[in-house]
Amino acid sequence: MSLYFIGLGLYDEKSISVRGLEEAKDCDKLFAEFYTSKLMGSSLNDIENLIDSEIICLSRDKVERSDLIVSEAEEAKVGFLVGGDPMISTTHVDLRLDAIDRDVDVRIIHGTSIYTAAPGLAGLQNYKFGRSATLTFPRNDKYPRSAFNAVKENRGRGLHTLLFLDLEEDGNFLSPSEGLEYLMEVVREEKSDLINLETVCVVVGRAGSSDPELVVDEIGELIERDFNQPMYILIVPGDLHFREEEALDKLKQV
Amino acid sequence: MSLYFIGLGLYDEKSISVRGLEEAKDCDKLFAEFYTSKLMGSSLNDIENLIDSEIICLSRDKVERSDLIVSEAEEAKVGFLVGGDPMISTTHVDLRLDAIDRDVDVRIIHGTSIYTAAPGLAGLQNYKFGRSATLTFPRNDKYPRSAFNAVKENRGRGLHTLLFLDLEEDGNFLSPSEGLEYLMEVVREEKSDLINLETVCVVVGRAGSSDPELVVDEIGELIERDFNQPMYILIVPGDLHFREEEALDKLKQV
Repeated sequence: MSLYFIGLGLYDEKSISVRGLEEAKDCDKLFAEFYTSKLMGSSLNDIENLIDSEIICLSRDKVERSDLIVSEAEEAKVGFLVGGDPMISTTHVDLRLDAIDRDVDVRIIHGTSIYTAAPGLAGLQNYKFGRSATLTFPRNDKYPRSAFNAVKENRGRGLHTLLFLDLEEDGNFLSPSEGLEYLMEVVREEKSDLINLETVCVVVGRAGSSDPELVVDEIGELIERDFNQPMYILIVPGDLHFREEEALDKLKQV
Repeated sequence: MSLYFIGLGLYDEKSISVRGLEEAKDCDKLFAEFYTSKLMGSSLNDIENLIDSEIICLSRDKVERSDLIVSEAEEAKVGFLVGGDPMISTTHVDLRLDAIDRDVDVRIIHGTSIYTAAPGLAGLQNYKFGRSATLTFPRNDKYPRSAFNAVKENRGRGLHTLLFLDLEEDGNFLSPSEGLEYLMEVVREEKSDLINLETVCVVVGRAGSSDPELVVDEIGELIERDFNQPMYILIVPGDLHFREEEALDKLKQV
Protein backbone atom coordinates (compact mmCIF):
# COMPACT_ATOMS: atom_id res chain seq x y z
CA MET A 1 0.00 0.00 0.00
CA SER A 2 1.18 3.54 0.59
CA LEU A 3 2.79 6.02 2.92
CA TYR A 4 1.94 9.70 2.49
CA PHE A 5 4.25 12.22 4.11
CA ILE A 6 1.95 15.20 4.54
CA GLY A 7 3.38 18.61 5.39
CA LEU A 8 1.36 20.50 7.99
CA GLY A 9 3.12 23.73 7.14
CA LEU A 10 4.04 26.50 9.49
CA TYR A 11 1.75 27.58 12.24
CA ASP A 12 -1.65 26.02 12.67
CA GLU A 13 -3.92 23.36 11.24
CA LYS A 14 -5.04 25.57 8.34
CA SER A 15 -1.48 25.80 6.99
CA ILE A 16 -1.92 22.37 5.39
CA SER A 17 -2.52 22.39 1.64
CA VAL A 18 -5.91 21.61 0.17
CA ARG A 19 -4.40 18.46 -1.37
CA GLY A 20 -2.79 17.51 1.95
CA LEU A 21 -6.13 17.79 3.71
CA GLU A 22 -7.87 15.70 1.03
CA GLU A 23 -5.26 12.96 1.18
CA ALA A 24 -5.19 12.95 4.99
CA LYS A 25 -8.98 12.53 5.07
CA ASP A 26 -8.61 9.61 2.67
CA CYS A 27 -5.98 7.77 4.77
CA ASP A 28 -6.87 4.61 6.70
CA LYS A 29 -4.51 5.52 9.52
CA LEU A 30 -2.80 8.75 10.55
CA PHE A 31 0.40 9.28 12.50
CA ALA A 32 2.07 12.56 13.41
CA GLU A 33 5.24 13.75 15.09
CA PHE A 34 5.90 17.15 16.64
CA TYR A 35 9.50 16.89 17.78
CA THR A 36 11.21 18.15 14.60
CA SER A 37 8.76 21.00 14.24
CA LYS A 38 5.89 22.22 16.38
CA LEU A 39 2.64 23.85 15.29
CA MET A 40 2.37 26.62 17.85
CA GLY A 41 -1.09 27.84 16.87
CA SER A 42 -2.73 24.46 16.98
CA SER A 43 -3.31 21.44 19.15
CA LEU A 44 -3.46 17.80 18.07
CA ASN A 45 -7.17 18.12 18.70
CA ASP A 46 -7.53 21.05 16.26
CA ILE A 47 -5.80 19.02 13.57
CA GLU A 48 -7.95 15.97 14.30
CA ASN A 49 -11.06 18.11 14.04
CA LEU A 50 -10.05 19.56 10.68
CA ILE A 51 -9.16 16.16 9.21
CA ASP A 52 -12.03 14.49 11.04
CA SER A 53 -9.89 11.50 12.06
CA GLU A 54 -7.93 10.26 15.02
CA ILE A 55 -4.18 10.87 14.85
CA ILE A 56 -1.56 8.83 16.69
CA CYS A 57 1.24 11.07 17.91
CA LEU A 58 4.67 9.40 17.88
CA SER A 59 7.85 10.07 19.83
CA ARG A 60 11.23 10.43 18.10
CA ASP A 61 12.11 6.99 19.28
CA LYS A 62 9.08 5.40 17.65
CA VAL A 63 9.63 7.19 14.34
CA GLU A 64 13.27 6.17 14.27
CA ARG A 65 12.31 2.54 14.74
CA SER A 66 10.40 2.87 11.49
CA ASP A 67 8.95 -0.62 11.51
CA LEU A 68 5.74 0.41 13.25
CA ILE A 69 4.84 2.92 10.55
CA VAL A 70 6.08 0.89 7.59
CA SER A 71 4.26 -2.27 8.68
CA GLU A 72 1.00 -0.38 8.78
CA ALA A 73 1.76 1.19 5.39
CA GLU A 74 2.26 -2.25 3.87
CA GLU A 75 -1.38 -3.00 4.57
CA ALA A 76 -3.19 0.33 4.25
CA LYS A 77 -2.98 3.95 3.16
CA VAL A 78 -1.06 5.57 5.97
CA GLY A 79 -0.54 9.30 6.41
CA PHE A 80 2.36 10.69 8.40
CA LEU A 81 1.79 14.32 9.38
CA VAL A 82 4.82 16.51 9.90
CA GLY A 83 5.16 20.25 10.57
CA GLY A 84 6.67 22.35 7.77
CA ASP A 85 7.75 20.63 4.55
CA PRO A 86 8.00 16.97 5.53
CA MET A 87 11.34 15.92 4.02
CA ILE A 88 13.51 18.39 5.94
CA SER A 89 14.48 15.98 8.69
CA THR A 90 16.90 13.07 8.11
CA THR A 91 14.68 10.80 10.23
CA HIS A 92 11.95 11.18 7.66
CA VAL A 93 14.31 10.44 4.78
CA ASP A 94 15.33 7.22 6.56
CA LEU A 95 11.68 6.28 7.08
CA ARG A 96 10.97 6.96 3.40
CA LEU A 97 13.87 4.75 2.26
CA ASP A 98 12.78 1.95 4.60
CA ALA A 99 9.28 2.14 3.14
CA ILE A 100 10.63 2.00 -0.43
CA ASP A 101 12.76 -1.03 0.51
CA ARG A 102 9.57 -2.77 1.55
CA ASP A 103 7.76 -1.87 -1.68
CA VAL A 104 5.48 0.66 -0.08
CA ASP A 105 4.42 3.43 -2.47
CA VAL A 106 5.65 6.73 -0.99
CA ARG A 107 4.18 10.13 -1.74
CA ILE A 108 5.22 13.56 -0.48
CA ILE A 109 2.66 16.32 -0.02
CA HIS A 110 4.66 19.45 0.53
CA GLY A 111 4.05 22.02 3.24
CA THR A 112 5.02 25.66 3.76
CA SER A 113 8.40 26.04 5.40
CA ILE A 114 10.30 28.47 7.58
CA TYR A 115 13.15 28.24 5.02
CA THR A 116 11.27 30.54 2.66
CA ALA A 117 8.79 32.14 5.07
CA ALA A 118 11.41 33.79 7.32
CA PRO A 119 13.40 35.47 4.53
CA GLY A 120 10.13 36.51 2.91
CA LEU A 121 8.71 38.05 6.09
CA ALA A 122 11.95 39.97 6.61
CA GLY A 123 12.09 41.23 3.02
CA LEU A 124 15.43 39.50 2.41
CA GLN A 125 16.26 37.71 -0.82
CA ASN A 126 16.38 33.90 -0.67
CA TYR A 127 19.19 33.52 -3.17
CA LYS A 128 21.44 35.56 -0.87
CA PHE A 129 21.24 32.99 1.93
CA GLY A 130 24.20 30.67 2.45
CA ARG A 131 23.88 27.41 4.31
CA SER A 132 21.80 27.36 7.45
CA ALA A 133 22.59 25.90 10.87
CA THR A 134 21.05 25.34 14.29
CA LEU A 135 21.93 27.14 17.53
CA THR A 136 21.78 24.51 20.25
CA PHE A 137 21.83 24.39 24.02
CA PRO A 138 25.36 23.95 25.44
CA ARG A 139 26.39 20.30 25.85
CA ASN A 140 28.61 19.63 28.88
CA ASP A 141 29.24 23.37 29.21
CA LYS A 142 30.54 23.50 25.63
CA TYR A 143 29.03 25.82 23.07
CA PRO A 144 28.68 24.02 19.73
CA ARG A 145 30.59 25.63 16.85
CA SER A 146 28.32 24.80 13.89
CA ALA A 147 26.22 27.98 13.91
CA PHE A 148 29.34 30.14 14.32
CA ASN A 149 31.04 28.34 11.43
CA ALA A 150 28.04 28.80 9.15
CA VAL A 151 27.81 32.53 9.94
CA LYS A 152 31.56 32.91 9.40
CA GLU A 153 31.53 31.23 5.99
CA ASN A 154 28.42 33.05 4.85
CA ARG A 155 29.29 36.52 6.11
CA GLY A 156 32.73 36.19 4.54
CA ARG A 157 30.92 36.03 1.21
CA GLY A 158 28.31 38.65 2.05
CA LEU A 159 25.56 36.06 2.53
CA HIS A 160 22.77 35.87 5.11
CA THR A 161 22.49 32.95 7.56
CA LEU A 162 19.29 31.38 8.80
CA LEU A 163 19.80 30.02 12.31
CA PHE A 164 17.31 27.56 13.73
CA LEU A 165 16.85 27.55 17.50
CA ASP A 166 17.09 24.22 19.26
CA LEU A 167 13.80 22.50 20.10
CA GLU A 168 13.86 19.75 22.70
CA GLU A 169 11.43 16.85 22.67
CA ASP A 170 9.73 18.10 25.83
CA GLY A 171 8.82 21.31 23.95
CA ASN A 172 11.55 23.41 25.56
CA PHE A 173 13.03 25.77 22.96
CA LEU A 174 16.11 27.94 22.86
CA SER A 175 15.06 31.61 22.86
CA PRO A 176 16.64 34.09 20.43
CA SER A 177 18.28 35.90 23.39
CA GLU A 178 19.91 32.76 24.74
CA GLY A 179 20.89 31.68 21.24
CA LEU A 180 22.64 34.98 20.59
CA GLU A 181 24.33 34.81 23.99
CA TYR A 182 25.75 31.40 23.14
CA LEU A 183 26.79 32.60 19.70
CA MET A 184 28.63 35.60 21.24
CA GLU A 185 30.28 33.23 23.70
CA VAL A 186 31.81 31.34 20.77
CA VAL A 187 32.74 34.61 19.06
CA ARG A 188 34.68 35.58 22.20
CA GLU A 189 36.31 32.15 22.60
CA GLU A 190 37.40 32.26 18.97
CA LYS A 191 38.58 35.87 19.39
CA SER A 192 36.68 36.57 16.18
CA ASP A 193 35.68 39.97 14.81
CA LEU A 194 32.92 38.33 12.80
CA ILE A 195 30.13 39.98 14.76
CA ASN A 196 29.92 42.06 17.92
CA LEU A 197 27.23 43.41 20.23
CA GLU A 198 26.48 46.22 17.74
CA THR A 199 25.85 43.85 14.82
CA VAL A 200 22.24 44.08 13.64
CA CYS A 201 20.35 40.77 13.53
CA VAL A 202 16.80 39.79 12.66
CA VAL A 203 14.40 37.73 14.73
CA VAL A 204 11.31 36.32 13.01
CA GLY A 205 8.58 35.06 15.29
CA ARG A 206 5.40 33.09 14.66
CA ALA A 207 5.93 32.81 10.90
CA GLY A 208 2.74 31.65 9.24
CA SER A 209 0.47 33.13 11.90
CA SER A 210 -1.72 36.20 11.46
CA ASP A 211 0.64 38.25 13.67
CA PRO A 212 4.20 37.36 12.75
CA GLU A 213 6.88 39.28 14.65
CA LEU A 214 9.87 40.95 13.02
CA VAL A 215 12.46 42.39 15.36
CA VAL A 216 15.54 44.03 13.85
CA ASP A 217 18.09 45.24 16.36
CA GLU A 218 21.68 45.10 17.58
CA ILE A 219 22.71 41.83 19.19
CA GLY A 220 23.30 43.57 22.54
CA GLU A 221 19.68 44.75 22.55
CA LEU A 222 18.28 41.45 21.36
CA ILE A 223 20.07 39.60 24.17
CA GLU A 224 18.22 41.80 26.70
CA ARG A 225 14.85 41.45 25.05
CA ASP A 226 12.02 39.17 26.17
CA PHE A 227 10.93 36.78 23.48
CA ASN A 228 8.06 34.84 24.92
CA GLN A 229 5.69 34.16 22.06
CA PRO A 230 7.48 31.35 20.17
CA MET A 231 8.45 29.94 17.68
CA TYR A 232 11.38 32.07 16.62
CA ILE A 233 14.13 31.88 14.07
CA LEU A 234 17.22 34.09 13.74
CA ILE A 235 18.77 35.66 10.69
CA VAL A 236 22.33 36.97 10.78
CA PRO A 237 22.48 39.21 7.71
CA GLY A 238 25.46 39.42 5.39
CA ASP A 239 25.80 42.41 3.09
CA LEU A 240 22.45 44.12 2.69
CA HIS A 241 21.39 45.42 -0.68
CA PHE A 242 19.88 48.91 -0.20
CA ARG A 243 16.46 47.51 -1.09
CA GLU A 244 16.85 44.88 1.63
CA GLU A 245 17.88 47.55 4.12
CA GLU A 246 14.84 49.58 3.17
CA ALA A 247 12.59 46.52 3.57
CA LEU A 248 13.99 45.63 7.01
CA ASP A 249 13.57 49.19 8.10
CA LYS A 250 9.95 49.47 6.94
CA LEU A 251 8.85 46.03 8.05
CA LYS A 252 10.41 45.83 11.50
CA GLN A 253 8.27 46.24 14.57
CA VAL A 254 9.39 48.27 17.55
CA MET B 1 -8.08 48.15 3.67
CA SER B 2 -5.83 45.19 2.96
CA LEU B 3 -3.59 43.35 0.54
CA TYR B 4 -3.17 39.59 0.99
CA PHE B 5 -0.24 37.97 -0.77
CA ILE B 6 -1.44 34.39 -1.13
CA GLY B 7 1.01 31.63 -2.07
CA LEU B 8 -0.42 29.17 -4.57
CA GLY B 9 2.34 26.69 -3.85
CA LEU B 10 4.01 24.37 -6.25
CA TYR B 11 2.08 22.55 -8.91
CA ASP B 12 -1.65 22.93 -9.17
CA GLU B 13 -4.61 24.70 -7.60
CA LYS B 14 -4.78 22.27 -4.67
CA SER B 15 -1.29 23.23 -3.49
CA ILE B 16 -2.78 26.34 -1.86
CA SER B 17 -3.15 26.15 1.92
CA VAL B 18 -6.54 25.78 3.57
CA ARG B 19 -6.08 29.27 5.07
CA GLY B 20 -5.03 30.68 1.66
CA LEU B 21 -8.17 29.29 0.08
CA GLU B 22 -10.38 30.71 2.85
CA GLU B 23 -8.81 34.16 2.61
CA ALA B 24 -8.94 34.16 -1.20
CA LYS B 25 -12.66 33.31 -1.11
CA ASP B 26 -13.16 36.20 1.30
CA CYS B 27 -11.39 38.80 -0.90
CA ASP B 28 -13.34 41.46 -2.77
CA LYS B 29 -10.97 41.37 -5.70
CA LEU B 30 -8.33 38.87 -6.83
CA PHE B 31 -5.24 39.42 -8.93
CA ALA B 32 -2.62 36.86 -9.96
CA GLU B 33 0.68 36.78 -11.82
CA PHE B 34 2.34 33.76 -13.43
CA TYR B 35 5.61 35.17 -14.74
CA THR B 36 7.78 34.57 -11.64
CA SER B 37 6.42 31.07 -11.18
CA LYS B 38 4.01 28.96 -13.19
CA LEU B 39 1.54 26.35 -11.96
CA MET B 40 2.08 23.64 -14.54
CA GLY B 41 -0.74 21.37 -13.41
CA SER B 42 -3.40 24.01 -13.40
CA SER B 43 -5.06 26.66 -15.52
CA LEU B 44 -6.33 30.06 -14.41
CA ASN B 45 -9.76 28.53 -14.87
CA ASP B 46 -9.02 25.66 -12.44
CA ILE B 47 -7.92 28.16 -9.80
CA GLU B 48 -10.99 30.33 -10.41
CA ASN B 49 -13.21 27.29 -10.03
CA LEU B 50 -11.62 26.28 -6.72
CA ILE B 51 -11.83 29.79 -5.26
CA ASP B 52 -15.17 30.41 -6.94
CA SER B 53 -14.19 33.95 -8.02
CA GLU B 54 -12.89 35.73 -11.06
CA ILE B 55 -9.14 36.39 -11.07
CA ILE B 56 -7.44 39.16 -13.03
CA CYS B 57 -4.11 37.96 -14.39
CA LEU B 58 -1.43 40.66 -14.51
CA SER B 59 1.69 41.05 -16.64
CA ARG B 60 5.07 41.85 -15.07
CA ASP B 61 4.73 45.40 -16.27
CA LYS B 62 1.40 45.88 -14.47
CA VAL B 63 2.69 44.40 -11.19
CA GLU B 64 5.78 46.58 -11.29
CA ARG B 65 3.65 49.68 -11.71
CA SER B 66 2.13 48.75 -8.36
CA ASP B 67 -0.39 51.60 -8.29
CA LEU B 68 -3.16 49.53 -9.89
CA ILE B 69 -3.06 46.88 -7.15
CA VAL B 70 -2.42 49.23 -4.24
CA SER B 71 -5.22 51.63 -5.23
CA GLU B 72 -7.68 48.75 -5.19
CA ALA B 73 -6.28 47.55 -1.85
CA GLU B 74 -6.88 51.00 -0.34
CA GLU B 75 -10.59 50.47 -0.85
CA ALA B 76 -11.18 46.74 -0.46
CA LYS B 77 -9.74 43.41 0.60
CA VAL B 78 -7.52 42.49 -2.32
CA GLY B 79 -5.83 39.12 -2.83
CA PHE B 80 -2.73 38.76 -4.96
CA LEU B 81 -2.12 35.14 -5.93
CA VAL B 82 1.44 34.07 -6.63
CA GLY B 83 2.97 30.64 -7.34
CA GLY B 84 5.23 29.18 -4.63
CA ASP B 85 5.83 31.18 -1.45
CA PRO B 86 4.79 34.71 -2.40
CA MET B 87 7.68 36.82 -1.06
CA ILE B 88 10.44 35.17 -3.11
CA SER B 89 10.42 37.75 -5.88
CA THR B 90 11.78 41.30 -5.39
CA THR B 91 8.85 42.68 -7.39
CA HIS B 92 6.52 41.45 -4.68
CA VAL B 93 8.65 42.96 -1.91
CA ASP B 94 8.45 46.31 -3.70
CA LEU B 95 4.69 45.99 -4.03
CA ARG B 96 4.42 45.15 -0.35
CA LEU B 97 6.47 48.19 0.68
CA ASP B 98 4.41 50.46 -1.58
CA ALA B 99 1.24 49.15 0.05
CA ILE B 100 2.64 49.76 3.55
CA ASP B 101 3.61 53.31 2.53
CA ARG B 102 -0.02 53.90 1.65
CA ASP B 103 -1.29 52.48 4.94
CA VAL B 104 -2.69 49.32 3.46
CA ASP B 105 -2.66 46.38 5.86
CA VAL B 106 -0.48 43.65 4.31
CA ARG B 107 -0.71 39.95 5.10
CA ILE B 108 1.34 37.06 3.76
CA ILE B 109 -0.20 33.61 3.38
CA HIS B 110 2.71 31.30 2.70
CA GLY B 111 2.85 28.66 0.01
CA THR B 112 4.94 25.53 -0.59
CA SER B 113 8.17 26.27 -2.37
CA ILE B 114 10.65 24.57 -4.68
CA TYR B 115 13.40 25.75 -2.24
CA THR B 116 12.50 22.97 0.19
CA ALA B 117 10.56 20.63 -2.12
CA ALA B 118 13.45 19.92 -4.50
CA PRO B 119 16.03 19.02 -1.82
CA GLY B 120 13.35 16.96 -0.07
CA LEU B 121 12.36 15.02 -3.17
CA ALA B 122 16.04 14.25 -3.87
CA GLY B 123 16.76 13.14 -0.29
CA LEU B 124 19.37 15.89 0.16
CA GLN B 125 19.71 17.88 3.37
CA ASN B 126 18.57 21.50 3.25
CA TYR B 127 21.22 22.81 5.60
CA LYS B 128 23.91 21.60 3.17
CA PHE B 129 22.74 23.93 0.41
CA GLY B 130 24.73 27.09 -0.23
CA ARG B 131 23.27 30.07 -2.05
CA SER B 132 21.13 29.38 -5.08
CA ALA B 133 21.24 30.99 -8.52
CA THR B 134 19.45 30.99 -11.86
CA LEU B 135 20.70 29.56 -15.15
CA THR B 136 19.58 31.97 -17.84
CA PHE B 137 19.39 32.04 -21.61
CA PRO B 138 22.51 33.61 -23.18
CA ARG B 139 22.27 37.38 -23.63
CA ASN B 140 24.01 38.74 -26.78
CA ASP B 141 25.82 35.40 -27.14
CA LYS B 142 27.26 35.74 -23.64
CA TYR B 143 26.71 33.09 -21.01
CA PRO B 144 25.94 34.70 -17.66
CA ARG B 145 28.40 33.83 -14.88
CA SER B 146 26.15 33.90 -11.82
CA ALA B 147 25.21 30.20 -11.75
CA PHE B 148 28.82 29.18 -12.31
CA ASN B 149 29.98 31.46 -9.50
CA ALA B 150 27.41 30.06 -7.08
CA VAL B 151 28.39 26.45 -7.89
CA LYS B 152 32.07 27.36 -7.53
CA GLU B 153 31.64 28.96 -4.12
CA ASN B 154 29.38 26.21 -2.84
CA ARG B 155 31.27 23.22 -4.18
CA GLY B 156 34.50 24.68 -2.77
CA ARG B 157 32.88 24.26 0.65
CA GLY B 158 31.25 20.92 -0.08
CA LEU B 159 27.78 22.45 -0.42
CA HIS B 160 24.98 21.70 -2.86
CA THR B 161 23.63 24.32 -5.27
CA LEU B 162 20.03 24.75 -6.34
CA LEU B 163 19.89 26.18 -9.86
CA PHE B 164 16.66 27.66 -11.15
CA LEU B 165 16.06 27.50 -14.88
CA ASP B 166 15.10 30.70 -16.63
CA LEU B 167 11.41 31.24 -17.30
CA GLU B 168 10.42 33.84 -19.90
CA GLU B 169 7.20 35.78 -19.70
CA ASP B 170 5.85 34.01 -22.81
CA GLY B 171 6.13 30.71 -20.90
CA ASN B 172 9.32 29.59 -22.66
CA PHE B 173 11.62 27.88 -20.17
CA LEU B 174 15.24 26.83 -20.21
CA SER B 175 15.45 23.02 -20.19
CA PRO B 176 17.87 21.23 -17.85
CA SER B 177 19.87 20.02 -20.89
CA GLU B 178 20.29 23.52 -22.31
CA GLY B 179 21.04 24.89 -18.84
CA LEU B 180 23.81 22.35 -18.30
CA GLU B 181 25.18 23.04 -21.78
CA TYR B 182 25.44 26.74 -20.96
CA LEU B 183 26.99 25.97 -17.58
CA MET B 184 29.62 23.73 -19.23
CA GLU B 185 30.28 26.49 -21.77
CA VAL B 186 31.23 28.80 -18.90
CA VAL B 187 33.29 26.05 -17.25
CA ARG B 188 35.28 25.74 -20.50
CA GLU B 189 35.68 29.50 -20.94
CA GLU B 190 36.91 29.77 -17.36
CA LYS B 191 39.21 26.76 -17.87
CA SER B 192 37.78 25.51 -14.59
CA ASP B 193 38.02 21.98 -13.20
CA LEU B 194 34.97 22.64 -11.05
CA ILE B 195 32.79 20.15 -12.88
CA ASN B 196 33.14 18.08 -16.05
CA LEU B 197 30.93 15.89 -18.24
CA GLU B 198 31.26 13.03 -15.73
CA THR B 199 30.03 15.08 -12.77
CA VAL B 200 26.76 13.70 -11.41
CA CYS B 201 23.89 16.20 -11.19
CA VAL B 202 20.27 15.97 -10.14
CA VAL B 203 17.22 17.10 -12.08
CA VAL B 204 13.93 17.43 -10.21
CA GLY B 205 10.83 17.72 -12.34
CA ARG B 206 7.21 18.54 -11.53
CA ALA B 207 7.80 19.02 -7.82
CA GLY B 208 4.48 19.07 -5.98
CA SER B 209 2.72 16.90 -8.55
CA SER B 210 1.68 13.30 -8.03
CA ASP B 211 4.47 12.11 -10.36
CA PRO B 212 7.57 14.14 -9.61
CA GLU B 213 10.64 13.18 -11.64
CA LEU B 214 14.09 12.60 -10.17
CA VAL B 215 16.90 12.06 -12.65
CA VAL B 216 20.41 11.54 -11.29
CA ASP B 217 23.10 11.19 -13.93
CA GLU B 218 26.36 12.50 -15.33
CA ILE B 219 26.19 15.93 -16.96
CA GLY B 220 27.17 14.43 -20.36
CA GLU B 221 24.14 12.13 -20.20
CA LEU B 222 21.78 14.81 -18.90
CA ILE B 223 22.74 17.12 -21.79
CA GLU B 224 21.60 14.42 -24.25
CA ARG B 225 18.37 13.63 -22.44
CA ASP B 226 14.90 14.86 -23.40
CA PHE B 227 13.22 16.78 -20.64
CA ASN B 228 9.81 17.68 -21.92
CA GLN B 229 7.49 17.56 -18.96
CA PRO B 230 8.33 20.81 -17.13
CA MET B 231 8.92 22.47 -14.69
CA TYR B 232 12.42 21.44 -13.79
CA ILE B 233 15.10 22.54 -11.36
CA LEU B 234 18.74 21.47 -11.21
CA ILE B 235 20.88 20.53 -8.24
CA VAL B 236 24.65 20.46 -8.50
CA PRO B 237 25.67 18.42 -5.46
CA GLY B 238 28.65 19.23 -3.29
CA ASP B 239 30.09 16.53 -1.02
CA LEU B 240 27.51 13.82 -0.48
CA HIS B 241 27.09 12.25 2.92
CA PHE B 242 26.79 8.48 2.49
CA ARG B 243 23.14 8.68 3.54
CA GLU B 244 22.51 11.29 0.84
CA GLU B 245 24.25 9.08 -1.72
CA GLU B 246 22.09 6.17 -0.64
CA ALA B 247 18.96 8.32 -0.91
CA LEU B 248 19.81 9.59 -4.40
CA ASP B 249 20.53 6.07 -5.50
CA LYS B 250 17.28 4.63 -4.17
CA LEU B 251 15.05 7.50 -5.19
CA LYS B 252 16.28 8.18 -8.71
CA GLN B 253 14.24 7.06 -11.68
CA VAL B 254 15.82 5.49 -14.74
